[in-house]
Amino acid sequence: MPIITLTTDFGVKDHFVAAVKGAIYSELPQATIVDISHEISPFHITEAAYIIQNAYKSFPKGSIHIIGIDSELTPENKHIAVKLDEHYFICANNGLISMIASAFKPEKIVEINIHDKINTNFPVLDVFVAVACHIARGGTLEVVGKVIEAVKMIKGITPIVNVGDKQIVGNVVYIDNYGNLITNITRKQFEEVGKGRQFTIKARSAVFKNIYDRYSDAINFTVEKSKREEDGKKLAIFNSSGYLELAIYKSNPKTVGGAASLFGLSYRDTVSITFE
Amino acid sequence: MPIITLTTDFGVKDHFVAAVKGAIYSELPQATIVDISHEISPFHITEAAYIIQNAYKSFPKGSIHIIGIDSELTPENKHIAVKLDEHYFICANNGLISMIASAFKPEKIVEINIHDKINTNFPVLDVFVAVACHIARGGTLEVVGKVIEAVKMIKGITPIVNVGDKQIVGNVVYIDNYGNLITNITRKQFEEVGKGRQFTIKARSAVFKNIYDRYSDAINFTVEKSKREEDGKKLAIFNSSGYLELAIYKSNPKTVGGAASLFGLSYRDTVSITFE
Amino acid sequence: MPIITLTTDFGVKDHFVAAVKGAIYSELPQATIVDISHEISPFHITEAAYIIQNAYKSFPKGSIHIIGIDSELTPENKHIAVKLDEHYFICANNGLISMIASAFKPEKIVEINIHDKINTNFPVLDVFVAVACHIARGGTLEVVGKVIEAVKMIKGITPIVNVGDKQIVGNVVYIDNYGNLITNITRKQFEEVGKGRQFTIKARSAVFKNIYDRYSDAINFTVEKSKREEDGKKLAIFNSSGYLELAIYKSNPKTVGGAASLFGLSYRDTVSITFE
Repeated sequence: MPIITLTTDFGVKDHFVAAVKGAIYSELPQATIVDISHEISPFHITEAAYIIQNAYKSFPKGSIHIIGIDSELTPENKHIAVKLDEHYFICANNGLISMIASAFKPEKIVEINIHDKINTNFPVLDVFVAVACHIARGGTLEVVGKVIEAVKMIKGITPIVNVGDKQIVGNVVYIDNYGNLITNITRKQFEEVGKGRQFTIKARSAVFKNIYDRYSDAINFTVEKSKREEDGKKLAIFNSSGYLELAIYKSNPKTVGGAASLFGLSYRDTVSITFE
Repeated sequence: MPIITLTTDFGVKDHFVAAVKGAIYSELPQATIVDISHEISPFHITEAAYIIQNAYKSFPKGSIHIIGIDSELTPENKHIAVKLDEHYFICANNGLISMIASAFKPEKIVEINIHDKINTNFPVLDVFVAVACHIARGGTLEVVGKVIEAVKMIKGITPIVNVGDKQIVGNVVYIDNYGNLITNITRKQFEEVGKGRQFTIKARSAVFKNIYDRYSDAINFTVEKSKREEDGKKLAIFNSSGYLELAIYKSNPKTVGGAASLFGLSYRDTVSITFE
Repeated sequence: MPIITLTTDFGVKDHFVAAVKGAIYSELPQATIVDISHEISPFHITEAAYIIQNAYKSFPKGSIHIIGIDSELTPENKHIAVKLDEHYFICANNGLISMIASAFKPEKIVEINIHDKINTNFPVLDVFVAVACHIARGGTLEVVGKVIEAVKMIKGITPIVNVGDKQIVGNVVYIDNYGNLITNITRKQFEEVGKGRQFTIKARSAVFKNIYDRYSDAINFTVEKSKREEDGKKLAIFNSSGYLELAIYKSNPKTVGGAASLFGLSYRDTVSITFE
């Protein structure tokens, strides 16, 4: 039976997540349910897209991903179920899927219509669970909705490449648990534009001349440990998701601070790469 | 095999929750364990009751709910196992069950006596797990305790209806992840007292003339999106649990604030409905 | 199939934990995965050791524990898999195992060598999952690494016993969800050194003359509840893990404060026991 994952902005204190799990187990006692995240900032579609995009690929093909972010049914936000990259996503048509699917064309999209008579303010429980269980039992999307051609497009913030490929200007799109700053500049774009030239990354007053593959590549291990200044060292890296990340080596945002606080950058702030 | 759920004030950093799960799996390798919440405010019985009450009904009949709040065995707090609404609850007899069970008469209550010789400061691990696994294997309550007639009653704060049904005066009983204020006034009570009359809800300086069914019902979707003032709009709603809730549309308590901070209300504060 | 547990400093908002779970389920659809903790303070080996030490023993023999703390492969931090006390641990050789294993000699230690060609900054996903699934399928440690004789030793802070057994001077090693202070002084050491003598515990200005077995043992239940001063009462206890803990009865660190804030103590601060 396929895995059902949950990504919401419900938090883990309230009863919402447990109610959803109870409802799934009531329909499918053998279900495997995995939390992706319940700590998405409320109604923050960009953050949800970043997290889901980087998590779903680890799951087996055929997994079903329930996304409970900004999911109330409105004239502008219909409910959809989408088959994409051989995974299923159930969510509101609020632009989120277009941010996940930028690299993939959805194989099938339906606008969910099982709830013509359901008037609910908890659609994840009352609608998405039923759709997920239907798919988990092998049901087709056409049974729960009518096929539509495209999802609502929201253009996420994308990096700008200056004329002559002299510069890429990107933005911070996520700040992780260590306070590290993840930008929307990918390794692929960096290599295509830079073509091996030397470069300078600027993020406010912080400047970087190298991009590492691993955090510890910034450390010179030939120097004796007691003489090294490694904790708190700033560095740029392509992270495990392929994005340019500005980091502090072994940072703890709750004590000494992380890259976000130390560089003074937050969500949407600018990071530039200038090539020579 | 029935589901075992966990509701505690242990938090998710410490080893307590994992130790409990490990002990359950050691007895029942095929167990399905679901977290309801581990973020109950320490020793906060009212909060725990609100969360469990709204979560347990989604689980299949026969589910076993371990509640680790204020659970040390004392002369005043015996341990009990309760069958209620076809679910099992294992907890201390500290009044919590009476708050969950206001609408239901327990089918059976036993005072747990398997631990006459167990002197422990971690009773969830050392006592509740054994009782839960016993029930999960199909054992009866009588084997683990002696039948008692009633649980300890704690009268939660309940709304007051003024003479002549002119006014309901309720209280904030919970503040959710979005900062929304949940009161103890139910839709049922509102309809029985109000009998369709017009009304005014007051919560400090905030005033409401309508109660919506869904958050987005407060929004006028015929106005073009860019011209609407929707984010930050205050509204009253009957939430998915049937309680009157005062909310801010798409609030984020960590950034712009939620209803609790914006209306200046906290736990136990007064919310009144005056009928015309 | 053995249980696989996860202990990391990833937090629960980011995609890291879900990516790891998805990868395990992709290899082992029937896996049972249990979170021990993802809220370890970043790179805090001592904290991780305390939590794992107290959690793993509840799990069945043969369980496999993935530890994602400070786990990037460096010239100084090799990856290891260890069989210890009939459990398996997969982590970096950063000293953490020596803190868990102080009471046990590892039965087998291998330095993982399956990744001679893997250059990754997410080794939990790219290396530890593969090793865990190999062990879960019944594979031997020798297949994934070469046997080594010892793990890297890091001497955790241990209590000092003064000449003549007059005094034990220990330290705070952990602060739990209730704000209680856990020291590195065990009941065993206390009994061996103290030999039944009377004693005085000092922690800054706080003084204790008794060590209880249970929190509520500090309360005199013969006094009527309304006349008792119980909430906020300070007490010393041997906690369920066998360590001396300084606590506040029914504390809530987010409201009235816990022992840590009320006694003014933090991680590594000194707690002494002087015998008469």
